[in-house]
Amino acid sequence: MGYGMAQSLLRAGHSVQGFDINPDVVNKLIAEGGQTQLFEAAAADTDILVIAVLNASQTTEVLFGDNGWAMKLKKSSTVISCATVSPEFAADAEKQCATFGIHYLDAPISGGAAKAAQGRLSIMAAGSEAAFDGADPALDAMAETVFRLGDSAGAGSAMKAVNQLLAGVHIAAMAEALTFGMTQGVTPEKFVEVISQCAGSSWMLENRAPHIVDGDYSPKSSVDIWPKDLGIVLDIAKSAKFSAPLTAAALQQFLAASGSGLGGEDDAAVAKVYARNAGLTLPGQ
Amino acid sequence: MGYGMAQSLLRAGHSVQGFDINPDVVNKLIAEGGQTQLFEAAAADTDILVIAVLNASQTTEVLFGDNGWAMKLKKSSTVISCATVSPEFAADAEKQCATFGIHYLDAPISGGAAKAAQGRLSIMAAGSEAAFDGADPALDAMAETVFRLGDSAGAGSAMKAVNQLLAGVHIAAMAEALTFGMTQGVTPEKFVEVISQCAGSSWMLENRAPHIVDGDYSPKSSVDIWPKDLGIVLDIAKSAKFSAPLTAAALQQFLAASGSGLGGEDDAAVAKVYARNAGLTLPGQ
Repeated sequence: MGYGMAQSLLRAGHSVQGFDINPDVVNKLIAEGGQTQLFEAAAADTDILVIAVLNASQTTEVLFGDNGWAMKLKKSSTVISCATVSPEFAADAEKQCATFGIHYLDAPISGGAAKAAQGRLSIMAAGSEAAFDGADPALDAMAETVFRLGDSAGAGSAMKAVNQLLAGVHIAAMAEALTFGMTQGVTPEKFVEVISQCAGSSWMLENRAPHIVDGDYSPKSSVDIWPKDLGIVLDIAKSAKFSAPLTAAALQQFLAASGSGLGGEDDAAVAKVYARNAGLTLPGQ
Repeated sequence: MGYGMAQSLLRAGHSVQGFDINPDVVNKLIAEGGQTQLFEAAAADTDILVIAVLNASQTTEVLFGDNGWAMKLKKSSTVISCATVSPEFAADAEKQCATFGIHYLDAPISGGAAKAAQGRLSIMAAGSEAAFDGADPALDAMAETVFRLGDSAGAGSAMKAVNQLLAGVHIAAMAEALTFGMTQGVTPEKFVEVISQCAGSSWMLENRAPHIVDGDYSPKSSVDIWPKDLGIVLDIAKSAKFSAPLTAAALQQFLAASGSGLGGEDDAAVAKVYARNAGLTLPGQ
């Protein structure tokens, strides 16, 4: 998603430097008009730092680790932090950035790699007026919809956690219902045709169930996202003494998928756990 | 829903007789142009019998109990059976009806009372060519969409069970996510505004979450539907040795709602179980 976001920034006319642990991605960006520099020169040149990494610990490493950007960025520059993290982590990172004189926008993203490349992400954002002002030129280039959810970091990550709870549960529920239907003679094709027009439909069902019909598990979004994101949800829930039985049940299904070697496949592959447990054969298997 | 369906049949110009254990409903129908007769005369006059009752045992009572219609209907008349039942029950009822020379259409309905009154139901139908031919004039009057799912009874009920699995899980997931959000400072209003535009949305979320925002638990569809319908799903699943952990978790939440006296409230009241368990106060409470 970071590469697609960088492409969208380039297309909007920004001067873009790219950093990735995979040099091939950086080289592609340079071929398209991007740049990359040594860390200290890059930081001195940067008005907006967009961090599109996996989780809180990677975000910490980028901002505050060896070669941490927070120490080297110009005063009053802005960090747009896109990983799914806890609201508490986001609030802490905002405070730490403030000690370096830089603004932090809590800005988890939704939409996937294709929408990232089209500049059509949804961004659930929260931060100070100054953080939004600093981030706006990049948000305009990367997002179709920016939800302004609060004036300090945390509210964006809270809404992202709520969305991930539902998205993860809905993928697992789709897989449960599709395979349950197969035991009763409802084919996956018929399932998609009928249920997507009925009260049982969801955004995730319409998006993911066709992958099962096609037998195509090339990862648009992978199984391994869900033990991570539902784990974050359940950690936050535990801190709040909030009982979340559906989320917990869905997490177990994704863990079973990951544990049986499907972690790198499309998240619709959670249906393979259900199919295996019920002795069913999915399309293309 | 039965009253609304009878109104739709009247509006389409059919001669309609109504029967209900509540005489007020029958009187309303008569005031609008309907009729009611003693059982034997009514049965002799009927081309199509529409049964809109709660479950399998009520369907059995109507068709095969004391004053069972199956024994009294004219040969080649058609039964449209709308309750949520197991596919196995539907197939058995079809066979029994055949012994009386009548056609049985397995025809579970979806859409609620308002759509029933507008003649805009979705009907998940399966049955013989003769059953569809016999039922068509009534289906045209009652339904916006008729899914033709198979040429013998059972396939309609199978698809309905799949739909109910998803609808029930999605209502409970909505309640779980909405109240989880409240623990993180996401208001119910903001939840509806943002999530209905995001990947976490579902048909049920868009339909039911506003009831919670409004604090309106007058039953459009009641909590007690779900222990029944998810119970049917899990019974079928058990017969097929199909493990359905999300369905089972959702059922427990609806049972807790029903057990704590909320059975007659709108099914969005399952959120009250989550709120109580987490010490939260929902809007209007």
